[in-house]
Amino acid sequence: MEWLLAPISALISVAVGFYLFYYVKAQDSGSKRMREISHAIREGAIAFLKREYMTLAVFVLVMATALGVLLPEPIWATPRWTQNVGLALAYIFGSLCSGLAGLFGMDVALRANAKTANAAKKGLNRAFPIAFRGGAVMGLSVVGLALLGISVVYGLTGDLTIVLGFSFGASATALFAKAGGGIYTKTADISADLVGKVEMDLPEDDPRNPAVIADNVGDNVGDVAGMGADLFDSYVACVVAVMILGQVLGPIETNLPLVFAGLGIIASILGVATVRVGRKSDPGKVLNRGTYVTCVIFAILTLVATMYYQYPPEIWGAAVIGLVAGIVIGVTSDYFTSINRAPARRTAESSETGAAINVITGFSYGLVSVFPPLIGIGIATAAAYFLCLPLGDGYGVYGVGAAAFGMLSIVGMVVANDAFGPIGDNAKGIAEQSGAEEEVIEILDRLDAAGNTAKAITKGFAIGAAGLTVISLLAAYREIVGGGIGFDLMNPLVLLGAMIGIAIPPLFSAMVMLGVGKNAFRMIEEVRRQFRETPGLREGKEGVKPDYAKCVDIATKGALKELLPASLVSIIVTLLVGFVGGIEALGGYLGGSIFAGLLFALLMANSGGLWDNAKKYIEAGALGGKGSEAHKAAVIGDTVGDPFKDTAGPSLNTLITVMSLVASVFAPLIILARSLLLG
Amino acid sequence: MEWLLAPISALISVAVGFYLFYYVKAQDSGSKRMREISHAIREGAIAFLKREYMTLAVFVLVMATALGVLLPEPIWATPRWTQNVGLALAYIFGSLCSGLAGLFGMDVALRANAKTANAAKKGLNRAFPIAFRGGAVMGLSVVGLALLGISVVYGLTGDLTIVLGFSFGASATALFAKAGGGIYTKTADISADLVGKVEMDLPEDDPRNPAVIADNVGDNVGDVAGMGADLFDSYVACVVAVMILGQVLGPIETNLPLVFAGLGIIASILGVATVRVGRKSDPGKVLNRGTYVTCVIFAILTLVATMYYQYPPEIWGAAVIGLVAGIVIGVTSDYFTSINRAPARRTAESSETGAAINVITGFSYGLVSVFPPLIGIGIATAAAYFLCLPLGDGYGVYGVGAAAFGMLSIVGMVVANDAFGPIGDNAKGIAEQSGAEEEVIEILDRLDAAGNTAKAITKGFAIGAAGLTVISLLAAYREIVGGGIGFDLMNPLVLLGAMIGIAIPPLFSAMVMLGVGKNAFRMIEEVRRQFRETPGLREGKEGVKPDYAKCVDIATKGALKELLPASLVSIIVTLLVGFVGGIEALGGYLGGSIFAGLLFALLMANSGGLWDNAKKYIEAGALGGKGSEAHKAAVIGDTVGDPFKDTAGPSLNTLITVMSLVASVFAPLIILARSLLLG
Repeated sequence: MEWLLAPISALISVAVGFYLFYYVKAQDSGSKRMREISHAIREGAIAFLKREYMTLAVFVLVMATALGVLLPEPIWATPRWTQNVGLALAYIFGSLCSGLAGLFGMDVALRANAKTANAAKKGLNRAFPIAFRGGAVMGLSVVGLALLGISVVYGLTGDLTIVLGFSFGASATALFAKAGGGIYTKTADISADLVGKVEMDLPEDDPRNPAVIADNVGDNVGDVAGMGADLFDSYVACVVAVMILGQVLGPIETNLPLVFAGLGIIASILGVATVRVGRKSDPGKVLNRGTYVTCVIFAILTLVATMYYQYPPEIWGAAVIGLVAGIVIGVTSDYFTSINRAPARRTAESSETGAAINVITGFSYGLVSVFPPLIGIGIATAAAYFLCLPLGDGYGVYGVGAAAFGMLSIVGMVVANDAFGPIGDNAKGIAEQSGAEEEVIEILDRLDAAGNTAKAITKGFAIGAAGLTVISLLAAYREIVGGGIGFDLMNPLVLLGAMIGIAIPPLFSAMVMLGVGKNAFRMIEEVRRQFRETPGLREGKEGVKPDYAKCVDIATKGALKELLPASLVSIIVTLLVGFVGGIEALGGYLGGSIFAGLLFALLMANSGGLWDNAKKYIEAGALGGKGSEAHKAAVIGDTVGDPFKDTAGPSLNTLITVMSLVASVFAPLIILARSLLLG
Repeated sequence: MEWLLAPISALISVAVGFYLFYYVKAQDSGSKRMREISHAIREGAIAFLKREYMTLAVFVLVMATALGVLLPEPIWATPRWTQNVGLALAYIFGSLCSGLAGLFGMDVALRANAKTANAAKKGLNRAFPIAFRGGAVMGLSVVGLALLGISVVYGLTGDLTIVLGFSFGASATALFAKAGGGIYTKTADISADLVGKVEMDLPEDDPRNPAVIADNVGDNVGDVAGMGADLFDSYVACVVAVMILGQVLGPIETNLPLVFAGLGIIASILGVATVRVGRKSDPGKVLNRGTYVTCVIFAILTLVATMYYQYPPEIWGAAVIGLVAGIVIGVTSDYFTSINRAPARRTAESSETGAAINVITGFSYGLVSVFPPLIGIGIATAAAYFLCLPLGDGYGVYGVGAAAFGMLSIVGMVVANDAFGPIGDNAKGIAEQSGAEEEVIEILDRLDAAGNTAKAITKGFAIGAAGLTVISLLAAYREIVGGGIGFDLMNPLVLLGAMIGIAIPPLFSAMVMLGVGKNAFRMIEEVRRQFRETPGLREGKEGVKPDYAKCVDIATKGALKELLPASLVSIIVTLLVGFVGGIEALGGYLGGSIFAGLLFALLMANSGGLWDNAKKYIEAGALGGKGSEAHKAAVIGDTVGDPFKDTAGPSLNTLITVMSLVASVFAPLIILARSLLLG
């Protein structure tokens, strides 16, 4: 019963989360103006989440009904109908937990922003802990609720098919949260920038800009709620996939992922506790040091557990391989996006020849940047496989799974760092809108920059972990459909599947990005209209305020409208390939989707980050600085990169996880239907 | 000996090519000014080709020596050293034939341009045949020399390993021609546009623009010589791959590709003969009709041959599947790029919100556009496979090969149509620079537009055929390394290979595009310098001429400099994966490269075409027409698309063919080296 370590750690995690929540809540929210702005952002974010969860609820209920009726076996043809009910309930429970983690994390982030802005008046060492602990609440509730949920479902049923349903529920929520939030945030960002900054020449976060609140809301729904749901999803999927792979090996191997995940939570809590910043520290380095410390603690704790429970040490080795690969991937992503490195600088320099060359250059470096992480994922997979292979049949792929949860074990810390970013960003926005002093803004600028630094590493972790997770899910899928099957590229059905599979991530990306374009088009019209029709708005006349709520509303409605077709297409095509092409075609399809999904996730995340930093490099004074022709060109590049890095790119992790889970969950039905039809 | 049909058809093709060459040569080259400009373009193009061939010659000699020493077995360890010599010679012969076809085709295109411009004074029906027959010379010499070369090598040695060497030689030339020409043409195009059109406000092809001749040269070296070498390469590789797949089945199956290829040539000659245009015809439709007619003739001729020689009709069926798939892919590409369709129009409309949204929209539609052709290739593969599978073991993949050469059989016609484009484009340029009348330019505009229409279909064919060819090459590779092996995605070595393989096409694309950027940077500086330092140049003062040659020189040197690393990296990584990872990793690697290669080839070709047409749509008067803000935004999108569609995109076909051939050619050495090292 050593797996009970998982729910115990999860409960501790939630408890620590609550403690930090009350710490943040107890801080002063600052001046009336600060509280007002924070309140407006909060209102917009809650309005978005409410509407999103309503749409999601309909989707979840329809899907749960379908699952309950059809799976694992059609309810009219099985005596074990309780299993069907269990699956449907687990699915709903998965969405609930994921949604709850997102809501909880966002709530604290929305409280933390004004408090951070206010504390910045007293110095960096006062503002930093609020922002970081705000992020940590999110991180600890994600891992806590995820592992608690898995433990509850597994403890009650002992049936991994039903745990898979829990994972599927979480992934559906994640796709909505990530893609919907991504569309929302970029709609607002592009509109605020294009009209406010470019056309009207207003500074960033200027309160006269009608899109400014929507933009601030976007940071929260996209980066906080969306990213939390995304990692919740990967984390759960990974643990479940490895448990499925372990089931054929024995009870130790089935429960080991839970033990390691539990220890990962402990490591994250300890890691969070070590993060402290002095007056002179570089907050970006402090955040990254926290990640490294967490990794080391995790490695030590799991080594102790391995010796104590006499687990095969090779599995521990595979987990460490995953951990190291995660860091390597993060560091290389950092190279390609960092403001201090050649790619961003060369892209900035190319802006002097115009926007087109800036776009081409940034895109090209983005293409190059996929090379190291893809090789890293490939090598980690092969190394983990061959390390564990001597343990016996089936241990090779189990090792790959171990590498995946090695990477994901420190997710609590990763999410904490990642959520730190939007809190700092929002705090800066609030300070600017409430007319704070130069020094305060300078401190918040440092927090914002620290968030970006930490993000490079955490993004690498997220994509790398998603890569290993979906490879494990592919293995789990094979296990579910019958271990003997292979996905040979020379099998024309596998190849056909792969050809379709590689087309899905681009198609999905296109649909959400076109969604951003359409949505931004509507919102830009609205922002222009407000400037045109509201006398005194542009000049900043006393008492004249833009209609923020209208912009929030447009972004919200549009995001949900544009998101649905993309999500449905990816689920429907997966089912079509399975039912029409069969099990092998579906395997090839998943393989293809993994390849294209990782490729585009990396390309979009990195080129987007690169364009952003090329622009910032110019804004810091290089090549003529703000307002120069080079700057105008770089702004265009940055705007192209916005939906890349914040809408399409980060949704792809979730997309390929969802596709893999659809395949695994529906596999029994596909086999049944095809055997009935084809005899 | 029915395969002798191949050399006979090839000789006929070359003969008809000569006849058309003399027809074109006999036409009037027009006014002194026209001849002058044509001469300048010719000089620039020859200068480029000379330097390219010099670089290539060094590369070919080094590679030939390596091949001769090491393959098929190390020369010191084999009694059959003549095979080594044969392989090296075949390799050199392959590059020679490919280079010759490129040179020959370009020569006639360079002659045809001024003659077409001159004939346009007398009407469309006088200008059209010159441009078309000029293109046909290229088409017929490509297929003629290719098939003649294969026949000679095969007839002399009867050894497919050596024929593979011929193919490898052709592909190396193609990679140089396609990527080098692609870098050249876009360097010139971007520089001419950015400085001439955007900064100086000159019209297209204005003789005051110092980059204008380099730009005209670029059309020839990129689109004519490069594209000819590309299809030469696919054509040869396809025929050889299918012969290798046929070898294990029997002599009929080995020789059948030669027979079908021979008939394809006859079909192309007949198709070329049917292309005629009246005063009122739509030349674009005429060109496409020519393609369809050729397809029908090919289908009939091969059906007759199938009945006469009693070939299994399934193989004929597979070839027809390929043909149909080619047309379907072409038609869908046409939808996504055509000026009259929603994607281009919506992209144009999005330009009103600025350049960034234009780029995002065009890129997104490009992402969507990969879906139909990938599915088309997948379905064609599976359909051809299952159609031929009942014939016995090994016939399934042979059927896939048959579909590939079905698509490629009409390459003569495809190249003719494709080379028509740059001839018309150049003719228009010459007419404009020599101050021709409005009506003449209007006629040449129609030719130019017809070239673009035909290109959509032929591009679809080229990419589709490349897709099926590399799939056949993968099968041939498996045959060479030992038929029993599989490339199962769940094998971690295959997966590692695939992860590296999918990263190569993006890496290669990035390297050549960054090459364009760097090169354009140098050239833009030069063009600006000339305008700054040459008094009277911009105003068009009598007697003041820009220094065209300097621009040609910069583009040439830069293109070759930027091209080499990209080509070497792709070859070296392929060998590394093979020697370090082994045969299975290399198989996965090829699979990954096929997936990513096709994906990016389609994405880049289609989004590039789309941006171009969105711009043209605005230029035709929509959304404010030329000079509007929307137009400026669309020009930026078009410039981003230039290296996509003319540099990186079209090189990817060739890249993946080269990678596949490297793998197949070096496979024996890899097996030997690894068995020596690993015991």
